[in-house]
Amino acid sequence: MPSETNHLLLEILLNPHPSLRDDSQQTDLVSARSDFLVDHFHAVRQRSLRIAAPLSPEDTVVQSMPDVSPTRWHLAPTTWFFETFLLKDRDGHRPFNDDFEYLFNSYYNTVGKPFPRERRGLLSRPGLSEVMEYREQVDEAIQRLIEQDSLDADDRRVLEIGLNHEQQHQELMLTDIKHVLSCNPLLPAYENPGDGLGSDVIDPKPSDVTADWLELDEGLEWIGHEGHGFHFDNEAPRHRVYLEAYSIANRCVTNREFIHFIEAGGYRRPEHWLSMGWSWVQSEDIEAPLYWTRRDGDWSQFTLHGLRPLALDAPVSHVSYFEADAYARWAGHRLPTEAEWEHARANLEERCPETDAAPLGNWDQQVWQWTQSPYTAYPGYQTAAGALGEYNGKFMCNQFVLRGGSVATSPGHIRVTYRNFFPPEARWQFTGLRLAK
Amino acid sequence: MPSETNHLLLEILLNPHPSLRDDSQQTDLVSARSDFLVDHFHAVRQRSLRIAAPLSPEDTVVQSMPDVSPTRWHLAPTTWFFETFLLKDRDGHRPFNDDFEYLFNSYYNTVGKPFPRERRGLLSRPGLSEVMEYREQVDEAIQRLIEQDSLDADDRRVLEIGLNHEQQHQELMLTDIKHVLSCNPLLPAYENPGDGLGSDVIDPKPSDVTADWLELDEGLEWIGHEGHGFHFDNEAPRHRVYLEAYSIANRCVTNREFIHFIEAGGYRRPEHWLSMGWSWVQSEDIEAPLYWTRRDGDWSQFTLHGLRPLALDAPVSHVSYFEADAYARWAGHRLPTEAEWEHARANLEERCPETDAAPLGNWDQQVWQWTQSPYTAYPGYQTAAGALGEYNGKFMCNQFVLRGGSVATSPGHIRVTYRNFFPPEARWQFTGLRLAK
Amino acid sequence: MPSETNHLLLEILLNPHPSLRDDSQQTDLVSARSDFLVDHFHAVRQRSLRIAAPLSPEDTVVQSMPDVSPTRWHLAPTTWFFETFLLKDRDGHRPFNDDFEYLFNSYYNTVGKPFPRERRGLLSRPGLSEVMEYREQVDEAIQRLIEQDSLDADDRRVLEIGLNHEQQHQELMLTDIKHVLSCNPLLPAYENPGDGLGSDVIDPKPSDVTADWLELDEGLEWIGHEGHGFHFDNEAPRHRVYLEAYSIANRCVTNREFIHFIEAGGYRRPEHWLSMGWSWVQSEDIEAPLYWTRRDGDWSQFTLHGLRPLALDAPVSHVSYFEADAYARWAGHRLPTEAEWEHARANLEERCPETDAAPLGNWDQQVWQWTQSPYTAYPGYQTAAGALGEYNGKFMCNQFVLRGGSVATSPGHIRVTYRNFFPPEARWQFTGLRLAK
Amino acid sequence: MPSETNHLLLEILLNPHPSLRDDSQQTDLVSARSDFLVDHFHAVRQRSLRIAAPLSPEDTVVQSMPDVSPTRWHLAPTTWFFETFLLKDRDGHRPFNDDFEYLFNSYYNTVGKPFPRERRGLLSRPGLSEVMEYREQVDEAIQRLIEQDSLDADDRRVLEIGLNHEQQHQELMLTDIKHVLSCNPLLPAYENPGDGLGSDVIDPKPSDVTADWLELDEGLEWIGHEGHGFHFDNEAPRHRVYLEAYSIANRCVTNREFIHFIEAGGYRRPEHWLSMGWSWVQSEDIEAPLYWTRRDGDWSQFTLHGLRPLALDAPVSHVSYFEADAYARWAGHRLPTEAEWEHARANLEERCPETDAAPLGNWDQQVWQWTQSPYTAYPGYQTAAGALGEYNGKFMCNQFVLRGGSVATSPGHIRVTYRNFFPPEARWQFTGLRLAK
Repeated sequence: MPSETNHLLLEILLNPHPSLRDDSQQTDLVSARSDFLVDHFHAVRQRSLRIAAPLSPEDTVVQSMPDVSPTRWHLAPTTWFFETFLLKDRDGHRPFNDDFEYLFNSYYNTVGKPFPRERRGLLSRPGLSEVMEYREQVDEAIQRLIEQDSLDADDRRVLEIGLNHEQQHQELMLTDIKHVLSCNPLLPAYENPGDGLGSDVIDPKPSDVTADWLELDEGLEWIGHEGHGFHFDNEAPRHRVYLEAYSIANRCVTNREFIHFIEAGGYRRPEHWLSMGWSWVQSEDIEAPLYWTRRDGDWSQFTLHGLRPLALDAPVSHVSYFEADAYARWAGHRLPTEAEWEHARANLEERCPETDAAPLGNWDQQVWQWTQSPYTAYPGYQTAAGALGEYNGKFMCNQFVLRGGSVATSPGHIRVTYRNFFPPEARWQFTGLRLAK
Repeated sequence: MPSETNHLLLEILLNPHPSLRDDSQQTDLVSARSDFLVDHFHAVRQRSLRIAAPLSPEDTVVQSMPDVSPTRWHLAPTTWFFETFLLKDRDGHRPFNDDFEYLFNSYYNTVGKPFPRERRGLLSRPGLSEVMEYREQVDEAIQRLIEQDSLDADDRRVLEIGLNHEQQHQELMLTDIKHVLSCNPLLPAYENPGDGLGSDVIDPKPSDVTADWLELDEGLEWIGHEGHGFHFDNEAPRHRVYLEAYSIANRCVTNREFIHFIEAGGYRRPEHWLSMGWSWVQSEDIEAPLYWTRRDGDWSQFTLHGLRPLALDAPVSHVSYFEADAYARWAGHRLPTEAEWEHARANLEERCPETDAAPLGNWDQQVWQWTQSPYTAYPGYQTAAGALGEYNGKFMCNQFVLRGGSVATSPGHIRVTYRNFFPPEARWQFTGLRLAK
Repeated sequence: MPSETNHLLLEILLNPHPSLRDDSQQTDLVSARSDFLVDHFHAVRQRSLRIAAPLSPEDTVVQSMPDVSPTRWHLAPTTWFFETFLLKDRDGHRPFNDDFEYLFNSYYNTVGKPFPRERRGLLSRPGLSEVMEYREQVDEAIQRLIEQDSLDADDRRVLEIGLNHEQQHQELMLTDIKHVLSCNPLLPAYENPGDGLGSDVIDPKPSDVTADWLELDEGLEWIGHEGHGFHFDNEAPRHRVYLEAYSIANRCVTNREFIHFIEAGGYRRPEHWLSMGWSWVQSEDIEAPLYWTRRDGDWSQFTLHGLRPLALDAPVSHVSYFEADAYARWAGHRLPTEAEWEHARANLEERCPETDAAPLGNWDQQVWQWTQSPYTAYPGYQTAAGALGEYNGKFMCNQFVLRGGSVATSPGHIRVTYRNFFPPEARWQFTGLRLAK
Repeated sequence: MPSETNHLLLEILLNPHPSLRDDSQQTDLVSARSDFLVDHFHAVRQRSLRIAAPLSPEDTVVQSMPDVSPTRWHLAPTTWFFETFLLKDRDGHRPFNDDFEYLFNSYYNTVGKPFPRERRGLLSRPGLSEVMEYREQVDEAIQRLIEQDSLDADDRRVLEIGLNHEQQHQELMLTDIKHVLSCNPLLPAYENPGDGLGSDVIDPKPSDVTADWLELDEGLEWIGHEGHGFHFDNEAPRHRVYLEAYSIANRCVTNREFIHFIEAGGYRRPEHWLSMGWSWVQSEDIEAPLYWTRRDGDWSQFTLHGLRPLALDAPVSHVSYFEADAYARWAGHRLPTEAEWEHARANLEERCPETDAAPLGNWDQQVWQWTQSPYTAYPGYQTAAGALGEYNGKFMCNQFVLRGGSVATSPGHIRVTYRNFFPPEARWQFTGLRLAK
């Protein structure tokens, strides 16, 4: 299973230091790299299957809104990615199915016209078992390439992007099936508590941390990924940002706190809301975070374990940017910028003793946190050439950055420089907020 | 398998003549009736399973447009019908699942708020196997009731409605899955030619009948069902209609003839179209019947056997009322009224020797035929009391009557008085046309 | 001002009996005809100006929904009709403005692509005064043609259609500006009571007639226009219809009666409604007829005189077909067919002494009355050749027939065979209902 | 007429230096201030009337899309602003019309529910002349208050906001009526060249400046308004931003250059476009900037002078953010950030000799220039308390900042720190672009 340590190891293996490059060391290195890569590849790929395991074939078909993809679909385009960018142009490769190129191209316009996103729920074929065969065949071919050391440095880079891409789909598999099941009046659970992935992955944990402010001084700070190790193109280049002095909360806003906002009439008072948010509240009849229902005065929340009483001291989740921003205004504060968030998080890491992971985990592994920063290019940002260049840059419009990570984020996928982004009305991810002032 | 003969037998058994009502005859009758009903019940119910048999669980989930229901869903509300109207209020009945009442109520507002039709494709649970169990449990209970002679005359009437209702769903299962599969770029076949239902049920047959006119005199004619034997409420009361002299075509318009209309620019000339039809052609970019595609000058049609060359001498199918009406105007003729259609069909039956079923079969078992008659109540029409009264009457608005039946109609379900109805833009049924003048 | 008598006179003048056709009688006839036609032409044309008189230039621009046309627009296409069909192809005619051909073609696809109906409210030019000049110039040219006896029999027929067409626009001018003004929170009156057109034209009159049934026997009856005198193509051919015995109410349903329906929860009980009507009630939040508002328990109605207390004994108006049909079901009755309506109305005329016009006026000059008949072609119906053939036939889809006439209908425009038609959700006309059983 | 000099004078008069505050100086000051304010107030107010002068009453009614307001409407809410925030709570004030409070509240939710923006085109009343009377009455009351020295410092601040608010509406009056007239197939001109406002205000001027880059060094720079003199809340607080070294074009992209983009297939190649922009191009069938049409190979542009040949060397205008961004990518460059734009503009001002206004004018008085910066709050931004706090902050979502000003911007309204903002698809303003790299 990937982890921070593994990432470091992987980095070393993928880009060995020149001093190691004599022949015998090289051979050892290649062999170690091959072993590692095969293990890493299978670990990531198998996690997707583990997520799909509790679902029936029927469950894997449904698309409950255009943003959501059917589970069966998630399993395919990640596989398509490896086939298209690593296998397709190689001698002797025979495509599993010629039609898949069109079907499972999520959004790469330069590869060909993608199948319309909002129609993914119309596809019952290929069925789940055929998708599984497709995965197996591609996985075997990739494994062979690794073992034969046929992947050059560029290929290995693509492999790594592909695995990170798969991890992103894994998070979406969980949030998408949650939305799908929530549309069923039977409110079926994805799995029972104790089974499978377990509640660590399913529910944000309550915390007994008392709310407090971390204070940070003004200054010219470095933000973004320094370039050593895997990162998406949108995290670079590392660059300087001038920050005024600011304070940021030591924990996220809780469900209990958010109920105070509701009870104070927060959803009915336009002065707390962005103009577009107020229109959204009215046209969609929004009265609480997504998945909340009130019965006899008590709040419940639909979860991957079915309908459950709301955990009052857990961070609020499934709120839109509009709700996060309105809450912050109502509370007399504001959302942090992404630079403030990143600087504070990096700063905290320096302060904490290594052994105490808990505050750090609470910081960024429970819910994604809306920042007030629209998603834009860092100064000097360059999209990659070709199809992979379509990965991030073309979405830099009408989306807000979220920082951190959530219970549904795949292990090892969280980085302090990681930039997630969604439109301001999106709620089906595990999205919450942290205050600043 | 039901047939005209069986229908007659059924009618006798359900409503025995008073002269037969001494005790021993009664006992024999009850026993014969019970045997017949059990056989008939299972024959109808099993045909639904046979239609579903070639489909994967995934196939049974998809709803490709609001008019279409997922196959799995079709299997459930027919079952719900028997449970709700024959079992629910009986001592000792335990519902299979309390939530099904809400889920599978198709449109009976008086039974409770139905689950929104256009959201049926969001349901992955209950899964196909659970629906199958539900069917089995209800079927067993119904069989027990029949065998114990616990169904009174009203119950038997409901049972018969329920079986006719199931037959209607069987036709929809075929037309709906055809639409679902047509949305998949892989254009998968429902089954291979020769398998399962066979091409008699799948494809309208070419005919070598030369087009001719049947001429009918003016007169006051009886129309509608005379009341003896099963029929839906909208086929009654039988009543008189004055018809001017008219001519009606001896066969439906063929694909070959319809291609002439296309090649004459029929879809591009507003003078042939109803105002609303012309708007529809323009906004939906309609250029041919549904499921037609042209490659290199030749027309193909998506069928339940996959994409196949168009059979030029088969009746045109999958045209809307707008297209049928525009074709008729372009040809210098018109569509018949439903009274003209019914009178001509009844007249033909009298003329034909019993042994020659072929012209009759061609008349009404290939494609439904649009008439120019909006769907309205016959004089003196009464809706039934209670929930069953919602069956037909409340749809008498903005729909046109189709007469005949199609290759997909269940055996024994076609009657000369049968009134099918769809909105003028509907095309996913096997709908064609017969000219009149 | 046209009247039934004038219509008869006009008919004689336009189609003189052959026995009158010697030379001197012809000359007298031509001269009398010319005088009559000029008077009649100006009487109709000036009524349009009288209707527009209370409005500001600003009022004449607004289109409050796609069905509504701006007043200024109504004044133009009637003029365009005379120019296009009587002047355009005549030697020496110079169009007032070449662009008007495109702008003011309401819906004749064969004349050229019409300007999109729903965008009429985007036009501020030509302004009101330019439209008035256009009218004057065309009117003078038409008057010249009449005086020079340059109109042949076909032309005179077109002239008559044009004047009837103008009268239809006159009714729409009143109902459209009523809708426009109702959208303004200031609720401005079109004119004050006592001014201008007067309340006879503005408000349906209360009636003290006690509700009763007229009973009519079954029989084969003639329906439709017999062909002598002006009528629209859709009123012909006259043909026989077999009617079962029926009863029809002697007056329309009143506001007071309709309030009972509301108070009995009529708008909240699906069992009274057509399926499509129930969807409409829910999606549009319908709770009362259009223009009704309740304040402190009392109902008011927006009228062309502004907001006024509801006249309880006046016929209910501004109800959709859905509401009319639901009311009739709730009351345990039904709407009449159009044949029943016409037969009863013709029958009543025979029974009434000539001097007693009041019951007849109450019958058909207060509100249009929804019938249960969809708008279809009479047997043997033929559309006229060319552009005028687009007048009525192409709208025979998803509309219901209304019979009678309303306070807003132009004098002399009502006929017992007249067929008005609107989609079932339309409410901005003065539409009410009469019960049958 | 306001100008930079007048702004400075106004600032001194509104906020006199404490050293001037002895009695006699105070009296003089008050008197001078009063004279100045009355002149300034009328100058701004009368310019609105001058813009409306060429229009007919009919023209002032039309709303051609939700973003556009009718001219008559623009004249009212600016007046409502002065009445509501300066007159309403004063003793003896009688509102001109009680209903106007609801009608002309553009978007201040805290003042009361605003009349829905997209329904402004449904209002024909109050008519143009009534709106003019409303303006006169309010103007007289304001003038009296100024002359009586009844406005305190806060009031004077509100007055100044109101006048700037009116200037913003003046620009919208021009761009909105341009859109309204463009929807009319007659393509009427707002005025003839040489009349009224003149072509300086109507058409961006061609320029013979050769394209070149201005190069700027990296550094920590001050951005935003320093607080002395009028500015909107969103221009403050002044704060530091770290800029990497960059180059910015010395002039905007021209029509000629934009034609190269079109001819290179720019609108048909997804790789140049943001994902959302590509969807927009496809769904809206975008092929050129708004108002462009091609006839026989030559481009024309609809202008306030009617349809005119495209001025090839004028800056391209009426492009969306999507088009600006796609052009920049296609050209191998990018759009500047707003900080880069402001810093370069301020820098240029320092470099230019005072007497040479031309390059500065070309820089920011021809077309608004899209920046790549989403519209967000500056660090430490505070919205004003009460209704005026709704002015800018609540729109900080899904909009991009434009810098500069256009030919339609009112004289004296442009500032180097001015932040205009529109959604990325907006095109009806005079919007163009300047490249950066």
